[in-house]
Amino acid sequence: MPPEGPRRRGAKGGPTITEIAAKIGVSAPSVSKVLNGRSDVAPATRLKIEKALQEHNYQRHASQTGTPSAPLVDLVFHELDSAWSIEIIRGVENAAGRHGLGVVLSDLGGQHSPQPRWMEEVLARRPLGVILVLSALTPEQRRQLDTRGIRYVVLDTDGEPPSDVPAVGSNNWYGGLSATRHLLSLGHRRIAIISGPEDVLCSRARVGGYRAAHAEAGVPVFADAIRWSDFSVAGGFEHGSALLTRADRPTAIFAGSDMQALGVLRAARELNIEVPGDLSVVGYDNLPLAAWVAPSLTTIHQPLNEMAETAVKMVLDMARGTDPRPRSVELATELVVRESSGPAPQES
Amino acid sequence: MPPEGPRRRGAKGGPTITEIAAKIGVSAPSVSKVLNGRSDVAPATRLKIEKALQEHNYQRHASQTGTPSAPLVDLVFHELDSAWSIEIIRGVENAAGRHGLGVVLSDLGGQHSPQPRWMEEVLARRPLGVILVLSALTPEQRRQLDTRGIRYVVLDTDGEPPSDVPAVGSNNWYGGLSATRHLLSLGHRRIAIISGPEDVLCSRARVGGYRAAHAEAGVPVFADAIRWSDFSVAGGFEHGSALLTRADRPTAIFAGSDMQALGVLRAARELNIEVPGDLSVVGYDNLPLAAWVAPSLTTIHQPLNEMAETAVKMVLDMARGTDPRPRSVELATELVVRESSGPAPQES
Repeated sequence: MPPEGPRRRGAKGGPTITEIAAKIGVSAPSVSKVLNGRSDVAPATRLKIEKALQEHNYQRHASQTGTPSAPLVDLVFHELDSAWSIEIIRGVENAAGRHGLGVVLSDLGGQHSPQPRWMEEVLARRPLGVILVLSALTPEQRRQLDTRGIRYVVLDTDGEPPSDVPAVGSNNWYGGLSATRHLLSLGHRRIAIISGPEDVLCSRARVGGYRAAHAEAGVPVFADAIRWSDFSVAGGFEHGSALLTRADRPTAIFAGSDMQALGVLRAARELNIEVPGDLSVVGYDNLPLAAWVAPSLTTIHQPLNEMAETAVKMVLDMARGTDPRPRSVELATELVVRESSGPAPQES
Repeated sequence: MPPEGPRRRGAKGGPTITEIAAKIGVSAPSVSKVLNGRSDVAPATRLKIEKALQEHNYQRHASQTGTPSAPLVDLVFHELDSAWSIEIIRGVENAAGRHGLGVVLSDLGGQHSPQPRWMEEVLARRPLGVILVLSALTPEQRRQLDTRGIRYVVLDTDGEPPSDVPAVGSNNWYGGLSATRHLLSLGHRRIAIISGPEDVLCSRARVGGYRAAHAEAGVPVFADAIRWSDFSVAGGFEHGSALLTRADRPTAIFAGSDMQALGVLRAARELNIEVPGDLSVVGYDNLPLAAWVAPSLTTIHQPLNEMAETAVKMVLDMARGTDPRPRSVELATELVVRESSGPAPQES
């Protein structure tokens, strides 16, 4: 067992717990309790201790000499939804299982940052690391985890994490580019895009790729044809219906997820618009389902399993004291052509 | 804090850890280590200790006086697959979250009983309880959990757990009955059924309901039309293709899951068989997706969220020392009619 007690110095050779306690006039056990996420410390004292830990940049030893962490990885979803989440869960579960780590799953219920209660639970259970999917930690939360030596990786980030936050994603810009190039090469000139939320980085990157494909082909972007939505079937249905009832309706729609694409297929069906005869539809993600729906979906393959496995590997590397290189990884995306896309219809 | 030490008696007033240790000539700390799932005990000693704990029916105190368990629930899937798993995960996650419990997810990779390594991990992390989905514990594993005061509930059991194992399921027989009644009432007389695996209890119950509906209508069951498969899209496609290329092909197929039903829709599409004009298809589960696919699926609603919440509640009740009543709960299933079923085609 590694020495782990009040007289142990923090990872960076700073003050010990006893020294920090003395400086702010509290007991060493109180500092220890706050570090361990115990709830039996008065709020004011807790605040004072958190502040002192941060000021002294205290970091618990976790790596070199053995680990006091629980053999757990926390996997945090902005929202557990659809088969997309299952692909990531499966990837994390497989990789974690190979290293004897349990996976603790949390659902933020649509919030993009964990709530204080979640943080309390995490500090108390002391996982080896935390993987955040489409969600982010506040600077305060990052400091709290740093102080406890709990590592974190952002997967498919919703924003722009500071460059020192390890991140795994996929090449969304290139995904947007390939999908749009495919549709342009089929002769489509009125291509609409339904992306994810505008404040989510990957949504903007895909729209960037969509624009770039138009620019390189010398084709103007179809007017009023960029829509921001969530990644749900309902979002695809709503925006698909709106686009397809326009007088100058698009001949192709590039959706932000396979689920959205299903919603677009549904909208087309209800309007008696044939896919791919009258309308081409391209999805995003390449969920197992995409090959089975009718018509099967042309889509952008996102390596969700590999992204998840890479995130686990980064957490493990960090817990062992190795800095992941590079800090930020972007895996390749790839166009998969199936039934839902075809030549642009002849203009009547 | 409750007294928790070598001199504490087991929950049933049996011998203390020290007494058990003395009886078999090992040290009390060794017994304690085995109880806590620690790996630093020689295999032979561990075996001897496990045996003694069982013989003396030792049960750790967990309920009345506070709990030494981690605030965790282990959720174990036979196989993490499709949107079906997400519905259950979401239900467990919501219910557990309301009680400040983290959810640890495991995937048995297709096995129907957890592996020894999983058991070691669980004993070490000491969750409040374990929820098993479509999987079961061996009698030996049940004893190991009993000894540690770790509670367990079987959700959607794959077999027939002993009557003292708490279980949550849904009324599969009635689901099979309602789906088949619906098809019979539409005039179908050649109704095939693709169910789940034959060794999984819920699959057999649905087939039982299918038979009962035929019997009550005085309609003979269509010959060679009962197929056992897994719950996957691929399974539905394979068996759907086989059924639909028969000379006397069915006019209706009742599938074991919405995913299987999607596979049947795919098979029909490839054979130019129109749904519901030439073929009616009924799914099972009522996943959110079922309303969106084309055609939308007539299906049996399974209250997956409620089943999951009930399982969490049972674990909590047991951890608090209350015996769940009843021990075995079966929630209602319900027919949801959408586009994929219609009147039987006129015989040509």
